[in-house]
Amino acid sequence: MNQTTDWSYRSEVRSADRQAVHAILESTGFFHPEEVTVAVELVKERLQRGLSSGYHFEFAELGGQTAGYTCYGPIACTRASYDLFWIGVHQEHRRSGLGRRLLARAEEHIRRLGGQRLYVETSSRAQYGPTRAFYLACGYHLEAELADFYAPGDGKTIFVKVL
Amino acid sequence: MNQTTDWSYRSEVRSADRQAVHAILESTGFFHPEEVTVAVELVKERLQRGLSSGYHFEFAELGGQTAGYTCYGPIACTRASYDLFWIGVHQEHRRSGLGRRLLARAEEHIRRLGGQRLYVETSSRAQYGPTRAFYLACGYHLEAELADFYAPGDGKTIFVKVL
Repeated sequence: MNQTTDWSYRSEVRSADRQAVHAILESTGFFHPEEVTVAVELVKERLQRGLSSGYHFEFAELGGQTAGYTCYGPIACTRASYDLFWIGVHQEHRRSGLGRRLLARAEEHIRRLGGQRLYVETSSRAQYGPTRAFYLACGYHLEAELADFYAPGDGKTIFVKVL
Repeated sequence: MNQTTDWSYRSEVRSADRQAVHAILESTGFFHPEEVTVAVELVKERLQRGLSSGYHFEFAELGGQTAGYTCYGPIACTRASYDLFWIGVHQEHRRSGLGRRLLARAEEHIRRLGGQRLYVETSSRAQYGPTRAFYLACGYHLEAELADFYAPGDGKTIFVKVL
């Protein structure tokens, strides 16, 4: 982590973030169009309903461009559990350490909000091996796997970190 | 299952179902007020947005009274997985076989909609032992447990049935 880039961060959500989120997720080549649509829906929900939507965002910017973001929120009916709904870094900024920074910042914010556990879900497919390795490297552990959850042969892995 | 009661069923959702759902869940003594509020919210969402809410309901009635219900829907970004969000039977009708009937009807409907897996979540606490036994008796298996998910000492158990 010899990262010297001067990212700036903002948790305010703007209209243009609908396009920014779309561009970030599409650039990675990792997500189905339906998943990108769902991610953009969360931005819209937040724009319409504010924090009562339950969606917290943080965007990282460099030179006025949005380079990555996180989206997370409390899980209803739990005392102190949170979900990381999305984390995405634009392809141009891969391997910059930004994902790790954004995740650490989300954890710190959740801790301040009183959260004690952060859950992350991702696919069990081979393509997502680097994603799973990223969460393990960030102190998460694999808590459960639901076989064939997304589709036959495509299970859901659930990671958690105690904050 | 020597059940002879003539339940009638309807999948149409009415305004009065907000109160009915509240009354059913409260009568069981099983749910926190916050959980009941969330259950009623799903009725409101459905009333406002129709089936685009993603929430299917079925209500069982006897003599014009709503005695139980299920709420289920497709899980976004999965090919054919569904969640059973709620199943509730009014305390007056416990041990009548209605829960089992409602669940079988939901499974049959989901199968017709193209669903292949139905997920159910419940607490790992001792109080929910009969609930877990009910799902096992209905052909579900315990797929995963997330320790301390709801609160310290109160984990989430995830059951699934392949339809």
